[in-house]
Amino acid sequence: MKGNIVVGQSGGPTAVINSSLAGVFSAAKALGVKKIYGMHHGIQGFLNEDLVDMSEYVKDDKDVELLKRTPSAFLGSCRYKMPKIEGNEAVYDKVFEIMEKYDIECLFYIGGNDSMDTIKMLSDYAALKGKPQRFMGVPKTIDNDLPITDHCPGYGSAAKYIATSLKEIIRDNSSFGIEKPTILIVEIMGRHAGWLTAAAALSRGEDCEGPDMIYLPEAVFDMDDFMARVKKLSEEKSSVVIAVSEGIKIADGRFVCELGNASDYVDAFGHKQLSGCGVVLANKIAEAYGLKTRAVEFSTLQRAATHIASLQDINEAFNVGYLACQAANDGKTGMMITIDVKERDPYQVGYSIYDIHAIANVERAVPAEWIINDGTDVSDEYVKYARPLILGELNPLMVNGTPQHLVLNKSTYRK
Amino acid sequence: MKGNIVVGQSGGPTAVINSSLAGVFSAAKALGVKKIYGMHHGIQGFLNEDLVDMSEYVKDDKDVELLKRTPSAFLGSCRYKMPKIEGNEAVYDKVFEIMEKYDIECLFYIGGNDSMDTIKMLSDYAALKGKPQRFMGVPKTIDNDLPITDHCPGYGSAAKYIATSLKEIIRDNSSFGIEKPTILIVEIMGRHAGWLTAAAALSRGEDCEGPDMIYLPEAVFDMDDFMARVKKLSEEKSSVVIAVSEGIKIADGRFVCELGNASDYVDAFGHKQLSGCGVVLANKIAEAYGLKTRAVEFSTLQRAATHIASLQDINEAFNVGYLACQAANDGKTGMMITIDVKERDPYQVGYSIYDIHAIANVERAVPAEWIINDGTDVSDEYVKYARPLILGELNPLMVNGTPQHLVLNKSTYRK
Repeated sequence: MKGNIVVGQSGGPTAVINSSLAGVFSAAKALGVKKIYGMHHGIQGFLNEDLVDMSEYVKDDKDVELLKRTPSAFLGSCRYKMPKIEGNEAVYDKVFEIMEKYDIECLFYIGGNDSMDTIKMLSDYAALKGKPQRFMGVPKTIDNDLPITDHCPGYGSAAKYIATSLKEIIRDNSSFGIEKPTILIVEIMGRHAGWLTAAAALSRGEDCEGPDMIYLPEAVFDMDDFMARVKKLSEEKSSVVIAVSEGIKIADGRFVCELGNASDYVDAFGHKQLSGCGVVLANKIAEAYGLKTRAVEFSTLQRAATHIASLQDINEAFNVGYLACQAANDGKTGMMITIDVKERDPYQVGYSIYDIHAIANVERAVPAEWIINDGTDVSDEYVKYARPLILGELNPLMVNGTPQHLVLNKSTYRK
Repeated sequence: MKGNIVVGQSGGPTAVINSSLAGVFSAAKALGVKKIYGMHHGIQGFLNEDLVDMSEYVKDDKDVELLKRTPSAFLGSCRYKMPKIEGNEAVYDKVFEIMEKYDIECLFYIGGNDSMDTIKMLSDYAALKGKPQRFMGVPKTIDNDLPITDHCPGYGSAAKYIATSLKEIIRDNSSFGIEKPTILIVEIMGRHAGWLTAAAALSRGEDCEGPDMIYLPEAVFDMDDFMARVKKLSEEKSSVVIAVSEGIKIADGRFVCELGNASDYVDAFGHKQLSGCGVVLANKIAEAYGLKTRAVEFSTLQRAATHIASLQDINEAFNVGYLACQAANDGKTGMMITIDVKERDPYQVGYSIYDIHAIANVERAVPAEWIINDGTDVSDEYVKYARPLILGELNPLMVNGTPQHLVLNKSTYRK
């Protein structure tokens, strides 16, 4: 590659999104790329010409290792969606103008569905206008809902966090209950896809019975059935643990979190705040049955907990970044690196490259046949699928008792 | 010691309460104690003669190591408080009757303020009736509010979890905010004492600016002042992070969590549910200023996260258990092991033994002089105090991608 490159991160961060950044960076270094630019706050920052020279921050191998151990988006993220090309050519021209100004030959975007759409639009525009610049997608999402790829970098680490933390709070919950059972509702991210909530099943093993029920957003939530099942469990058990997706909905389409006072709340952007279904259910059980309940929400902890990230996930995240850079160097554009799993046990993984048009804006749900027991659990097939993704650890570099991170700006005061 | 011993765990679990159990067990083994009984669910279970033979579960050194890495109370916990002696002699006689039946010479209770009261009452009753049995307290509480001892086992690990997780979600929060700042409110345990919330300050370092404000329950919470400070911060910063104790109160004595719809909720025992002040504040800010807000509650995660426990804390927890057993063997009764810190940097620790009467039912708050900036932060003196308590890690034994635990009963189905 003769020109420079630019790389950006977009959407909700993950525990390993910086491993993919480290992968792109390392491949570019190995290829002798002169300038490796980073977009500060994704394509939105790029449009403001807010670029950083990555080499000023990632100076040596130790920095690469620190970057791999740093949660959230090192370069900052955004939720900007490229407008449709027709009537918005100016925005697209601006992207290419900045690329030309900085002699940028390839643009890499690490993200989920929306980010892959950005890669699709930009590569389509290049084709339309006969531009030589190339655009590559690097998959990233804890939601695990990108199609074609076996799974998405970021998912394994979030799943490992969920399984680990759930095991710990299941132990906590089971220490009481000498007279009456304690009901623990754990709320897990995933508005449309239940991949993250399904990871609650990974807490099961020789030393943990795991959650009693698991509710995914792919299945309709039946409140009466739920309450009846909780009643039965509470009569038989000293500890009842239920994992629920933030996105569970009742038959009329309303979210469960809309059914209680706790979340009659619309945020500043007019979005209903999708949190609190755990609280709604815990309060309902307490009121109906007079039981002690507690709701725990993993919130952003589940996507930021790099200290307990999956080594397999970190390595795969690095590899998709590395391979995206190599593919662009080979002349590829408008594509995303995918992960192929040839064998699950023993785990054997490979990588391919796929047309971005088949990926952008497509969401992949948990297969219906993996949702069992009238929508209250997931099958062993899910566990076989997900187990290898959470294996291994990469110990954090601990300084003064906490993990050290590589940061672009320590201060968040605006200049 | 010629007779047997019994050990129990009580109150809210911690990440290292089982290290103290391992300490008592190991000392008793070394002293050649024949039977080491465990109370299933504390003194409440003991009164039902619900005892386990610890040696059936802790069979070798590997089991001791696993026990140290297991969160929550291995033996189960309870919240039972011994009644006053006068008029309730039957309850006390029952305890001694069971002790005699099982030839139990010494009783150890691992717990906080209420548990130390149990030790006081039982040793008082023994003195009153001229009974030979001995009673020893082993300190444990994430709240860190026991007097006399420099700090309490369990606190260091909870503080390490808080500092580590806060660093991670501060990174997460700071990745957005390109247009408007994101306001993150983190709610931390501690109804009366602010020790845990103060630990938010330990997230600060070369790579993290830490929270912008820290609110402890020891200081009166001024809502107008809070809102004005948030407004100013949101004008200057792209990310605003505030740590609040669940127990913060406004001047008229009401908890902040009582001020919103989210928590107008009294639990089955008639207790106001003390959670949700983070949600109340986040909603208030969103409504007043139209800013994007998020509330994260560490909930029981902060007391159960043995996977990131402090090695210093694990070792001290083990030692106070071990020394309590040795002291009882030396004839001591009605006392608790305390931790003495001779130097903080480099950290130098020792142990003493203290009359339980000076400890039971006394709560120690964060010193007023450590609460600074009009009640919105803690001083460097706090950081100097707490830093050595969070140092070091004891890696979990990972099996299938999650930490392995030693469990008494995997199933929580009632027999």
